[in-house]
Amino acid sequence: MDSGTLRFDGIDYPDGRSSDPRRHGWMEGAPPPSERQVRFADESFLAFPQMRWSLSHMRELVPTVNVWRGPGPASDLGTPTGAHDAAIDGLAFTDLQGRERRWDESLHDTYTDGIVVLHRGRRVYERYFGALQPHLPHACFSITKSYAATLCATLVHEGVLDESQRVPHWLPEMKGTAYEDATLRQLLDMQIGVAYSELYADPQAQIWDYARAGGVRPRPAGYSGAGNFYEYLQTLQPEGRHGEAFAYKTVNTELMAWIMKRVTGVSLAQMLSERLWSPLGCEEDGYLSVDPICVPMGGGGLSASLRDLARFGELMLRGGAWQRRQLLPEAVVADIRRGSDPAKFAQAGYTLLAGYSYRSMWWVSHNALDAFEARGIHGQRLYVAPKADLVVARFASHPVAASAANDPITLPAFLALARLLHHG
Amino acid sequence: MDSGTLRFDGIDYPDGRSSDPRRHGWMEGAPPPSERQVRFADESFLAFPQMRWSLSHMRELVPTVNVWRGPGPASDLGTPTGAHDAAIDGLAFTDLQGRERRWDESLHDTYTDGIVVLHRGRRVYERYFGALQPHLPHACFSITKSYAATLCATLVHEGVLDESQRVPHWLPEMKGTAYEDATLRQLLDMQIGVAYSELYADPQAQIWDYARAGGVRPRPAGYSGAGNFYEYLQTLQPEGRHGEAFAYKTVNTELMAWIMKRVTGVSLAQMLSERLWSPLGCEEDGYLSVDPICVPMGGGGLSASLRDLARFGELMLRGGAWQRRQLLPEAVVADIRRGSDPAKFAQAGYTLLAGYSYRSMWWVSHNALDAFEARGIHGQRLYVAPKADLVVARFASHPVAASAANDPITLPAFLALARLLHHG
Repeated sequence: MDSGTLRFDGIDYPDGRSSDPRRHGWMEGAPPPSERQVRFADESFLAFPQMRWSLSHMRELVPTVNVWRGPGPASDLGTPTGAHDAAIDGLAFTDLQGRERRWDESLHDTYTDGIVVLHRGRRVYERYFGALQPHLPHACFSITKSYAATLCATLVHEGVLDESQRVPHWLPEMKGTAYEDATLRQLLDMQIGVAYSELYADPQAQIWDYARAGGVRPRPAGYSGAGNFYEYLQTLQPEGRHGEAFAYKTVNTELMAWIMKRVTGVSLAQMLSERLWSPLGCEEDGYLSVDPICVPMGGGGLSASLRDLARFGELMLRGGAWQRRQLLPEAVVADIRRGSDPAKFAQAGYTLLAGYSYRSMWWVSHNALDAFEARGIHGQRLYVAPKADLVVARFASHPVAASAANDPITLPAFLALARLLHHG
Repeated sequence: MDSGTLRFDGIDYPDGRSSDPRRHGWMEGAPPPSERQVRFADESFLAFPQMRWSLSHMRELVPTVNVWRGPGPASDLGTPTGAHDAAIDGLAFTDLQGRERRWDESLHDTYTDGIVVLHRGRRVYERYFGALQPHLPHACFSITKSYAATLCATLVHEGVLDESQRVPHWLPEMKGTAYEDATLRQLLDMQIGVAYSELYADPQAQIWDYARAGGVRPRPAGYSGAGNFYEYLQTLQPEGRHGEAFAYKTVNTELMAWIMKRVTGVSLAQMLSERLWSPLGCEEDGYLSVDPICVPMGGGGLSASLRDLARFGELMLRGGAWQRRQLLPEAVVADIRRGSDPAKFAQAGYTLLAGYSYRSMWWVSHNALDAFEARGIHGQRLYVAPKADLVVARFASHPVAASAANDPITLPAFLALARLLHHG
């Protein structure tokens, strides 16, 4: 069972155990033998199974900016007593394809690097695998969007930004682009008509042009594309109409982050530090990858420790309150939890996410637990289930970028966990 | 007085005040106007006065690895009471060119970014200027060498490494290079005959080939040189004999760091964390720039917060003991403080450093205070004066790389400070 494979989209990948980075010895040796090297320049850092190492080591591959935790002590999340371990590890559930699974095995089958479960605000379960350690920040990918947009919605609440304004109100250079008549709220809810593909499996998709512009993917010799994120955004042309349907496009977040910076003068890194990392009592500094003019990548550049990700989930669960301080406006959190129009979401064709909507860059289930989620490619997940008083933070390095590859296990596993913990 | 210039080697540079990075607004704006951008690719991050910003922001320009401070509280260095401020700021001294100076003005004249003074283990004076803040790591440049070599000498003391062995004992690939018959002790004391120039003012000097190999300076299109530090080291050819004279060459440190990694399997970042950052109770994580195969730059890649640099100085002052724990062997620190042969040092022609020697990558003054120093280009300095119970940690962004440009002020300033604090 230690050398199996798993098949996704017709391709066989080494399974969770056989792709364990400790087995492969990535970057071990001085120098590591060439076949054990993980490099930025040759894109091996994005290859599988090298990714099982690189997602815990992003700052060694690209320039980054610190998200400072401040000078205070870490906040208390309790210490797992182990009382729930046997019950959780042995938890049985049926995946969305009808297969019976056990929780502990499912962690390997989702290529989990680490998972922490908070119930009633206390850590009840925590596991690390492979290259991840409790103090190491791991790539959050698009969970970054939920952090950034929650802060953006907060700026709207505070009157700093008007969500009904159109993009050129703040960024006149966006006239003549797809965004000329898009409002900030349409950005926040990703209801933008723009010619841009986020199909990770397609090497021609624009997501890779965006990544090369931002320097988070290597540029070919003689590269003559956009020099940074802002330049790239100004090339985007319209396709379809705004406000009609949900369409997930990372460039929308990058543009939102640009507006936040233009108006406040405060970088995303500093805003995350001042409004979240420091007052939440995060244990470790986080970091954001930056583009060639040192602009943090708001659409997906965050790395954070697993516990610090869980703290953010717990803050959202508590309606923005933390140790008697209201860190985020309660109305902002309530608005996110209410979601937006599921009919607009349905048009995007996420068959595994029936009934969901998307609000301020959170995925809102509208299920019996009122669960809402932050999601990142390759299995990153922050799952907040208010009616079960449950937060699950998970990092993974799944060979397939799209969440649809792990949702058939992830979604029923988390629901089963909620039932187990909350209703015994 | 706010728009003056200072002349070094026949070139006029904006002086300390007029080069203050807050005035220039480096990287301000979204995007910053092109004339305010500081970039890696065009080498502007190493230009003056852009450097006054970039030395506090190295990780935003190059990949880095974390030096973790661990989970504990920061150690107590006391809080400056201000009692000494007026006396120190007004301290008069004569520089080595015979000019009368005042301490507070001299900080600007040495392009100081931050300075902290510990007397009897307590902070008595602390100042930050320009882009530096207490929690921000600043480039240490060659102070990195003193950290790394102190750990290497500790490994020798522990019997992990034999300093009388020759380099190929651990690195057979170094046969046929300048280092074939060099011992580890000769590396530690920089008494190596190797064809390699460290003349920073010369764009053809090999130091830049080394930097390009390590990815800490941009590579031209079509670059075909060494791909990383280790590859570069294997190209070095002999010039002169080992053991005869001190010759300051950063590649010696890089090679020493390679041996440490080859033998222990522990990266420099992890060793710094486990042996210094964590047990010293450092306040902030540090970081090291890394090469394209993620090897930390032992010769000059460290960034640290100013107070954490001061903690290292205080540890050396106390003979390696910290809060009743012996973090470094007392014998290792004593050996460094004793220095090596001043006659071999004298051959290197440092006219401002008469009587000095160089031991385990520390500069040893053999003066009345038994002072010894860690030194980095552009004004980085850790000054430890045991007989005055004094530590001075200073970060700067001086337009001239060589310490000789600031020593005429720095050396008499620190001596005057020692007299003031220790003898009133």
